[in-house]
Amino acid sequence: MSGQVLDRVDHPPAGVREDPGGFDLSAPDGTRYRVDLTTAVLDPRNTLLARHLEGRRVVAFVSPAVDRLYGDRLRAYLDAHARRGQWTLHVIRTGEHHKTLAAAEHVCALAKADGLDRHGLMLAVGGGIVADVVGFAASIYARGIRYIKVNTTLVGQVDVGVGVKTGVNALQTKNMFGAYHPAHASLNDPAFLATLPHREIRCGLAEIVKMAVILDDGLFRTLERHPDVFRRLGDGDPDHSHGDLETYVLRTSMRLMMEELCPNLQEHDLARLVDFGHTFSPVVETAGGHRLEHGEAVAVDMALSAHVARLLGLADDETCERVVRLLRRIGLPVFDPLTCTPGLMTQALRASWQRRGRKLHLVVPTGIGKAAFVEELEDLPGEVLVAALEALAADGERRDA
Amino acid sequence: MSGQVLDRVDHPPAGVREDPGGFDLSAPDGTRYRVDLTTAVLDPRNTLLARHLEGRRVVAFVSPAVDRLYGDRLRAYLDAHARRGQWTLHVIRTGEHHKTLAAAEHVCALAKADGLDRHGLMLAVGGGIVADVVGFAASIYARGIRYIKVNTTLVGQVDVGVGVKTGVNALQTKNMFGAYHPAHASLNDPAFLATLPHREIRCGLAEIVKMAVILDDGLFRTLERHPDVFRRLGDGDPDHSHGDLETYVLRTSMRLMMEELCPNLQEHDLARLVDFGHTFSPVVETAGGHRLEHGEAVAVDMALSAHVARLLGLADDETCERVVRLLRRIGLPVFDPLTCTPGLMTQALRASWQRRGRKLHLVVPTGIGKAAFVEELEDLPGEVLVAALEALAADGERRDA
Repeated sequence: MSGQVLDRVDHPPAGVREDPGGFDLSAPDGTRYRVDLTTAVLDPRNTLLARHLEGRRVVAFVSPAVDRLYGDRLRAYLDAHARRGQWTLHVIRTGEHHKTLAAAEHVCALAKADGLDRHGLMLAVGGGIVADVVGFAASIYARGIRYIKVNTTLVGQVDVGVGVKTGVNALQTKNMFGAYHPAHASLNDPAFLATLPHREIRCGLAEIVKMAVILDDGLFRTLERHPDVFRRLGDGDPDHSHGDLETYVLRTSMRLMMEELCPNLQEHDLARLVDFGHTFSPVVETAGGHRLEHGEAVAVDMALSAHVARLLGLADDETCERVVRLLRRIGLPVFDPLTCTPGLMTQALRASWQRRGRKLHLVVPTGIGKAAFVEELEDLPGEVLVAALEALAADGERRDA
Repeated sequence: MSGQVLDRVDHPPAGVREDPGGFDLSAPDGTRYRVDLTTAVLDPRNTLLARHLEGRRVVAFVSPAVDRLYGDRLRAYLDAHARRGQWTLHVIRTGEHHKTLAAAEHVCALAKADGLDRHGLMLAVGGGIVADVVGFAASIYARGIRYIKVNTTLVGQVDVGVGVKTGVNALQTKNMFGAYHPAHASLNDPAFLATLPHREIRCGLAEIVKMAVILDDGLFRTLERHPDVFRRLGDGDPDHSHGDLETYVLRTSMRLMMEELCPNLQEHDLARLVDFGHTFSPVVETAGGHRLEHGEAVAVDMALSAHVARLLGLADDETCERVVRLLRRIGLPVFDPLTCTPGLMTQALRASWQRRGRKLHLVVPTGIGKAAFVEELEDLPGEVLVAALEALAADGERRDA
């Protein structure tokens, strides 16, 4: 039997394919998944989610906020579409400090008690924390079972929800344990955004600004014209009806992110443009005791990186100014006095360098819609970092006209 | 950028390829790995392991027995081949009750404290428990890092070491949490078997008998002639020099197992011939409070399954008798009075049925080197099970001439 030819799988060409209902991703390593963009996902007449349940046992996990706002609708949906007695629902705690191995273990214990076997599925309805914890639980449960994400937050819809990363924090490290475990389905319904707190909208916009700065000046200009997209849905934009504007921003961000992730799903290449805003921010988040949300720390990082680019002569003054101004107009912080010190930011650079295989790979804008890497630690002299922090402090103090 | 063709990976044809130094497996899903068969693996002049270290940071984990017998040699090897200050070694506890999530977490914590990042690797030197726990730890550490297995037990060399399954016990369930995470390298050196306790040799032989019964009558006849292979290395077999006999049995078992695993690495197909001996045995192990080792429980299961086959008219009397006799000549139990009751064995059938997607998929021999599935619960009437258990009890009481 040695050397026997058993099968030869023909993968579709790698890439991201867009259709009216969403995006299909096909990675060079053979991983394939789809992210759907839909409306009224919990309306029993919308069978998109129902089709993925396929008569399997379902254990659903939701955040307290989702339970409060959408719990009844979700229960009614499952009643209508899952087999009788074949579904259960649990509320799990959110917040970065509940993203733990114990939380993932708890999710598994609840699923086990509900009789979930390897043919069943976990359903995560919520933001990034619920998706991360439930996704990780699903990745280890019986050596990996299906899970479905219904992404209810903006950051969930444009970031966590379109990728394959799951994880929990441990050993004083963010996402210390995790897996690259694609969801069986990932569903984005913009209607959820109507009930999001403004702070969470802003955090999602930070990730959208990120994609715009590094890849798409058209998206950036749209955000400049509509920094309140997703918040003020009736602002009378001449080019778009309101839903269209929202959909354009959402769809573009999803597509850009999936195209960036696709060739490098498992992050073997550590020079990633989507790490823009993610070099200094882990320290801003953790050393700041999580006063700032992830998206807020990313905003601070992007502003700092823009100043670094300007001071290194990689970007002109206007680029830097436009990045900082857009973040401020959205209502995002661009400076955090407690953590934006030369000492802590140098630590952050060293930690990133370590994490990225002893390369800095700092992403900086070189224009709007363009970016480059500062590859080595020594390419970013201490005095440049100090000058960037001083400029940032001034930005943080200034108020918009 | 939508629909852009990024890359198209050409996988080699799926299958198992044998060469003098080991086996290359290439699965239809694109997974590829190699299992090496080598000698003097810890001799600093053998660079097989060294080549896989590739200048990376190494955190090694060994069982207490391996530390006692081979710890000095392993340390000397790492001193010779790993970068100075770039390797550490830890002893971890073995035994089924130490195969826990906490043990995997402890492995990760030790690795983190030693400065292991996602480019480093974990090295597991020991039997199945060390491989399972360290393999699982490696699968979740920083979303998955490399690990290397040096398999020192017989069951490690022919079973755990040639597959991709990792796992820990939890929630009263064997391998409740785990991953399909292939080792970067898996090295088998038969010399380790010389220091194995006889009971562990017998347990490994149970898995070898399993492969022989379902797939290879030639291997089965060799075992009939040499039930003490791996124990009495100097018994004067006319066909083989001693090392050759050992090597033939090892190599054949490895190849048969890898060929069976290859098309179904992630066990999407739940009708698996290699589950022969693994339907009743989980209950024999757990309900018996782990008095019997895994391989011993597998032996009991195989004997019971052989009687079931005989009583269902699927195998002739001689086949059943030869299976039971070989197990007894090896010194394996074929009956466990405490757990081999109609009640517990019916429970075991139901649990397997549940685990295997509501199909029984009980593997039974239909001759030596041939097997079939009893697919449905109702195909195995209660009175047949009772009669098989009674025949088994008689086998267990009888002594060989």
